Amino acid sequence: MSFLADLLTTVFERRYRGASEPDHQRRTIEELCTDLLSSSGEVSGMVLARHILDSYGAMDEDGKKAFFDFLTTQLGIDPNQVKSALEAYALEASKSNYRQFMEASEPPRQELARRLNQVPGATKQLVEMRRDLLKLARKHPELAVVDLDLRHLFASWFNRGFLVLRPISWESPADILDKIIAYEAVHAIDSWDDLRRRLQPADRRCFGFFHPAMPDDPLIFVEVALTQGIPGSVQGLLADERDNIAAEDADTAVFYSISNCQAGLAGISFGNSLIKQVVSDLSRELPNLKTFVTLSPIPSLNRWLEESGAQTGPLPEDQQRQIAAHYLLNAKRADGTPYDPVARFHLGNGALVHAVHADADLSENGLAQSGGTMVNYLYDLPLISQNHERFASGQDVVASPEVTALSATAEQKDT
Amino acid sequence: MSFLADLLTTVFERRYRGASEPDHQRRTIEELCTDLLSSSGEVSGMVLARHILDSYGAMDEDGKKAFFDFLTTQLGIDPNQVKSALEAYALEASKSNYRQFMEASEPPRQELARRLNQVPGATKQLVEMRRDLLKLARKHPELAVVDLDLRHLFASWFNRGFLVLRPISWESPADILDKIIAYEAVHAIDSWDDLRRRLQPADRRCFGFFHPAMPDDPLIFVEVALTQGIPGSVQGLLADERDNIAAEDADTAVFYSISNCQAGLAGISFGNSLIKQVVSDLSRELPNLKTFVTLSPIPSLNRWLEESGAQTGPLPEDQQRQIAAHYLLNAKRADGTPYDPVARFHLGNGALVHAVHADADLSENGLAQSGGTMVNYLYDLPLISQNHERFASGQDVVASPEVTALSATAEQKDT
Amino acid sequence: MSFLADLLTTVFERRYRGASEPDHQRRTIEELCTDLLSSSGEVSGMVLARHILDSYGAMDEDGKKAFFDFLTTQLGIDPNQVKSALEAYALEASKSNYRQFMEASEPPRQELARRLNQVPGATKQLVEMRRDLLKLARKHPELAVVDLDLRHLFASWFNRGFLVLRPISWESPADILDKIIAYEAVHAIDSWDDLRRRLQPADRRCFGFFHPAMPDDPLIFVEVALTQGIPGSVQGLLADERDNIAAEDADTAVFYSISNCQAGLAGISFGNSLIKQVVSDLSRELPNLKTFVTLSPIPSLNRWLEESGAQTGPLPEDQQRQIAAHYLLNAKRADGTPYDPVARFHLGNGALVHAVHADADLSENGLAQSGGTMVNYLYDLPLISQNHERFASGQDVVASPEVTALSATAEQKDT
Amino acid sequence: MSFLADLLTTVFERRYRGASEPDHQRRTIEELCTDLLSSSGEVSGMVLARHILDSYGAMDEDGKKAFFDFLTTQLGIDPNQVKSALEAYALEASKSNYRQFMEASEPPRQELARRLNQVPGATKQLVEMRRDLLKLARKHPELAVVDLDLRHLFASWFNRGFLVLRPISWESPADILDKIIAYEAVHAIDSWDDLRRRLQPADRRCFGFFHPAMPDDPLIFVEVALTQGIPGSVQGLLADERDNIAAEDADTAVFYSISNCQAGLAGISFGNSLIKQVVSDLSRELPNLKTFVTLSPIPSLNRWLEESGAQTGPLPEDQQRQIAAHYLLNAKRADGTPYDPVARFHLGNGALVHAVHADADLSENGLAQSGGTMVNYLYDLPLISQNHERFASGQDVVASPEVTALSATAEQKDT
Repeated sequence: MSFLADLLTTVFERRYRGASEPDHQRRTIEELCTDLLSSSGEVSGMVLARHILDSYGAMDEDGKKAFFDFLTTQLGIDPNQVKSALEAYALEASKSNYRQFMEASEPPRQELARRLNQVPGATKQLVEMRRDLLKLARKHPELAVVDLDLRHLFASWFNRGFLVLRPISWESPADILDKIIAYEAVHAIDSWDDLRRRLQPADRRCFGFFHPAMPDDPLIFVEVALTQGIPGSVQGLLADERDNIAAEDADTAVFYSISNCQAGLAGISFGNSLIKQVVSDLSRELPNLKTFVTLSPIPSLNRWLEESGAQTGPLPEDQQRQIAAHYLLNAKRADGTPYDPVARFHLGNGALVHAVHADADLSENGLAQSGGTMVNYLYDLPLISQNHERFASGQDVVASPEVTALSATAEQKDT
Repeated sequence: MSFLADLLTTVFERRYRGASEPDHQRRTIEELCTDLLSSSGEVSGMVLARHILDSYGAMDEDGKKAFFDFLTTQLGIDPNQVKSALEAYALEASKSNYRQFMEASEPPRQELARRLNQVPGATKQLVEMRRDLLKLARKHPELAVVDLDLRHLFASWFNRGFLVLRPISWESPADILDKIIAYEAVHAIDSWDDLRRRLQPADRRCFGFFHPAMPDDPLIFVEVALTQGIPGSVQGLLADERDNIAAEDADTAVFYSISNCQAGLAGISFGNSLIKQVVSDLSRELPNLKTFVTLSPIPSLNRWLEESGAQTGPLPEDQQRQIAAHYLLNAKRADGTPYDPVARFHLGNGALVHAVHADADLSENGLAQSGGTMVNYLYDLPLISQNHERFASGQDVVASPEVTALSATAEQKDT
Repeated sequence: MSFLADLLTTVFERRYRGASEPDHQRRTIEELCTDLLSSSGEVSGMVLARHILDSYGAMDEDGKKAFFDFLTTQLGIDPNQVKSALEAYALEASKSNYRQFMEASEPPRQELARRLNQVPGATKQLVEMRRDLLKLARKHPELAVVDLDLRHLFASWFNRGFLVLRPISWESPADILDKIIAYEAVHAIDSWDDLRRRLQPADRRCFGFFHPAMPDDPLIFVEVALTQGIPGSVQGLLADERDNIAAEDADTAVFYSISNCQAGLAGISFGNSLIKQVVSDLSRELPNLKTFVTLSPIPSLNRWLEESGAQTGPLPEDQQRQIAAHYLLNAKRADGTPYDPVARFHLGNGALVHAVHADADLSENGLAQSGGTMVNYLYDLPLISQNHERFASGQDVVASPEVTALSATAEQKDT
Repeated sequence: MSFLADLLTTVFERRYRGASEPDHQRRTIEELCTDLLSSSGEVSGMVLARHILDSYGAMDEDGKKAFFDFLTTQLGIDPNQVKSALEAYALEASKSNYRQFMEASEPPRQELARRLNQVPGATKQLVEMRRDLLKLARKHPELAVVDLDLRHLFASWFNRGFLVLRPISWESPADILDKIIAYEAVHAIDSWDDLRRRLQPADRRCFGFFHPAMPDDPLIFVEVALTQGIPGSVQGLLADERDNIAAEDADTAVFYSISNCQAGLAGISFGNSLIKQVVSDLSRELPNLKTFVTLSPIPSLNRWLEESGAQTGPLPEDQQRQIAAHYLLNAKRADGTPYDPVARFHLGNGALVHAVHADADLSENGLAQSGGTMVNYLYDLPLISQNHERFASGQDVVASPEVTALSATAEQKDT
């Protein structure tokens, strides 16, 4: 770096990084945040922002807890101020009254996050900050208000219009593939060779959403198998030795794994958009595709059975399927939505329950959660809107006649 | 497009684009906005969003006025709802109380804008929507509250951390250069040859900030001349025939034009960040650069002279300079900040008034606004923070001894 | 540049750029070429190569002539050496005999060109060197042997497998568009606005072949209009104000201008490959395209008429067309191929003469060369191979019934 | 693919891929080659070329042998034709006589390779064809003449001016990294984790040369360690757990592995250019680098000892070093060049023997070839030209005083 570039760094940081006695190094992170929120934070802000993020990064759990306490208690709204601004606005809905209401009703911690975000790489760090916060908020529920603010901000920053869909392939950078291995949440990838089997064959695809400010970090990704007919087990899909087909010969696209990557973006939903975009792109590329279907786990089946006092041990195949069908169609939460989280997601997107398969996931995890049973949710294009409508209004679970029949059998037995 | 892709488009749009009797074409834009804000807007939202944006784009001024009226009156906050949520929160700062307050205090038109933004190209259209709104709000001040919401949202979307600095050169795409010609606000570019003179020589540079969702549209750009010594006129810089120097031989970088490009982003400041980033990048690339200076217009000099009852006609060169120096150092607005908008900008960034030049901009516009006088603001790196501090706290205008002397002479004469 | 990088440049150049008394600056270009061809040229070669290219670039016509004389007389083959190597090889076709024959039969000037080519940017300079050579060889036919070597080398370097087809659009870099304006050889582009009319509308396309070592310089490009039906005049295509159509609505792609860009690549044919590639890419992108046709000039019609002693003045439209048809079908060179160079090109590619249009190019050039008459060559996909075969074997010119009839009428009159 | 694109493929292939009875499928590869070399090969050539390459790819060793026999006997030069063309040219050095000589003296198999190369991906296939050929030519020396032609052609195609230097990092595509693992010839990479250790740390670099027609396939690559001081063992460099340094803190760049990747490009040297380019780029990026040195194997030390009847078993460290020094300075081939191939390469590039280290490569391979001893060749920038000159003219091996002394000790003992 040249002398001048050096100088430049120094001087823009003058206030906070003096040579002999670094002022800002004696200031607490709370004082630095207050500085950043002040008017002069706009000029020296970048150095301040980096310093705050660095300090945060170096903190242990207690430090972070103290920092979030500060955000909770010192950088929240002032109800009295909101109240008087609101009253003024209620009397006269003028521009200046509305501005004062806006300023009063948004807590300073939101502006703090925006000002921190000016540093290169900050977006990723802020997402990780929320991951820490979510963890701490389980023990310290008073911090949850800060999370609401971050979630609100992130929902705006990670708006669908700013996301980019990118194929992930064996030609993708290794550092991104590293993350695919790390983030895969449904069927663990146990080696680079395993990864290669999911990416390199002509009948395998993977797509992820990325945000331009975090170009090396997928937000969510989906793994797709192109097949002839609907497969009934994940072992077949992931087998070491299997015959590939040409992509053009496939009639079915199977979404067999969808993984969210950023714990710090919890509660901001990308899955629905991702599936729609991938269906749309694949249809365009491969006009022979006629069926879009998932091969999904049933993660809460055994838990529900246990809660219901039913048996979860090994059962004959037929019975497994009947129970799973019954569960998917009838097990509900208090609010009337499906008990199963994966079912909630796909049914909420307008898919229907198409088929259930026993012995379809014989991994340890698969056996533990559902005795190895899996389910196909079908994205039947002409019915998606209607399914969604029925689900959203009446919480109707739409299913194929076969699954409905299986469920009915289970119920007959039950009675 | 394949049959299926076709079908897909159709079915995701089922509700709103029925074959025989297109439901959504009979719905008003207001009804469509209400639909988009409803829960099912999450599934069929993309079609709705596009339809709303298309409808808006086809509207005349009356239609747009009606649409903004709708946003103003129907999609604002409900003060009563805010009030009760606020009271609950004041009693108990719980997560659910805070969530309800947040929901009540943010008007639905902000969420509407976020949902509209999921369509490719929407960001640009929303920015243009605000441009229309700002125009209408001049005549219809009641619309200004909507503008405050959009500005707030855009300040978050166009946060520094999401902007990308890109050099603009003769190797840049012609459609971007088209926009440089269109947006240049300081010294008009009158032809592609004129543009080429500003971009192609080794001692000329141009940089712009871009947002990833509007990759073909600069937000702001700055034109830079690399020179030996500080130039005293823009004619010299823009001359048709002049001797170029090698970039490595320059000791000075002159920012001779800074133009904002998006009327719809008015009030969201990019200039300060742009200058800092360009200074930083140029220092790194060209270590011989020692001086960073502007050659700036004095846009309100003559207006101020007229308001002060002073003469604006042709004056001797010396007198021109004295008056300009006096104006820059002393002419203030009611709030104590400089009368001159360009002075406000650079002094607010920590620059100082370095020199004034008579007959420095002999264009029609230059003569009309300041009798052709221009000014160099100097970004003296070791002094930037201190200058900013003095300006921000006491509205001190820092100037070189020469300019201070010129101003003093003018004042002596005046008395 | 760092001290070391500096040093590096110096030391790799040690022999040729000594500090006190630059050895290589006293050496002639011929001596430098001999050095570059010696074994040590492999290590210090880059500096030498650059120096030779720079020296060449600074030469006037006499200097260049002397340089090419040197290549002709000093760096050609030695027939005696070839003879003895050939005799040895004829006796025993061993590896070492063949190697010696190869070395003897390739003149050192080919290796010189390869060694010059190691410098960044050299490929372009070598192409320009051949352009100079071709010009000089007209006056100095003894230089033509050097040209044969360069052409042979360039045919290998610019092999189809190394060329890249790139769309050229209004989003292309301005410096490339600059070259499109400069190189357009058929219908001059008179301004950036004219260029924009040919690139920006949805029903206009342009494609060029590029070589990776000359990425900013097209080798050849073709301009395409997407139309409904086959157009009969270029005025219509290039009109200032015309109604665009959507690309998807076009049934016809009209190649209305093909321009070679590099005089130094004369004799190396790219046009045939370019047309095939563009036909193939457009078919894929726009499945509605059914017809691929040119709208071509008839550059030698009037010259041929003059040579035949016929009238070239203004004629009634009908007669114009009959004469043009007759000319295209019957006017031949001594070797039996069509008299018209554009006809030779398209018929050689397997196209057929589809239609002739009077008053189709009313530009000065169009009137001068063919009285404004133009011709459509049709690339009728199922017939291309067969047409080519008939043309290649028997020099049959295939034409539509209409053109054949027009030609027959002309001949009847003639008798 | 649309109907038309389909048709297009068909018709361009008409002659060779008829529907009912595919003509070209009954033709032998030799007949297809003859067709491709005929004039009409220019129009239907692409299909022919692909067919030939596909046929070749499907052949077993016998088939390939027969194909190369064909190239050897049928597509070579005709000495009589060369003779008469040569005689004509010797009498009159005219353009047409020279053209006929050129045509006669270049065997048709070179043009065949150029015409095959028009198909996408052909360059890679031709390089692999030569790999097969080199293997077969060991048993069938009569094929070597074909290899001379391919090598000549490839030396032209893979000319330095067409190569692109690209950094290879952990951000590189996995399919390229796959090849790095496969091609590493010096210190085997045994897993993706091992690869990551060589690419990801801030003090590790890797660079490769690529050709634009084979963008996913490196031609040669070098692995570099940035260190403080010159390291004496490869174990240290490749250790699992080691402390990284910042790149800026390094004073030395160690080239510890250089691997050629393409057996089919044997005899075409890239290493010298690669080292120079990397030295130049690193110097520019990291001005603190003062020393450029290799840490190289001594692959033929033990073989030479055995041939000399000397002991190769474990020896004391001192003795190891003396013997290695002696070997590097004195062991020569019949032609006077160093016995050791790696020594030949670096000394030929102008490096000098800087130090020898016992127990520096304790891998199985390292022990087997040199008892674990390694050597640093130093690229001492101010001396490179002079070293090269001394080596090239008098086969002087330049060494540091230490190595010279070690060698002298060994020799004293010997006497």
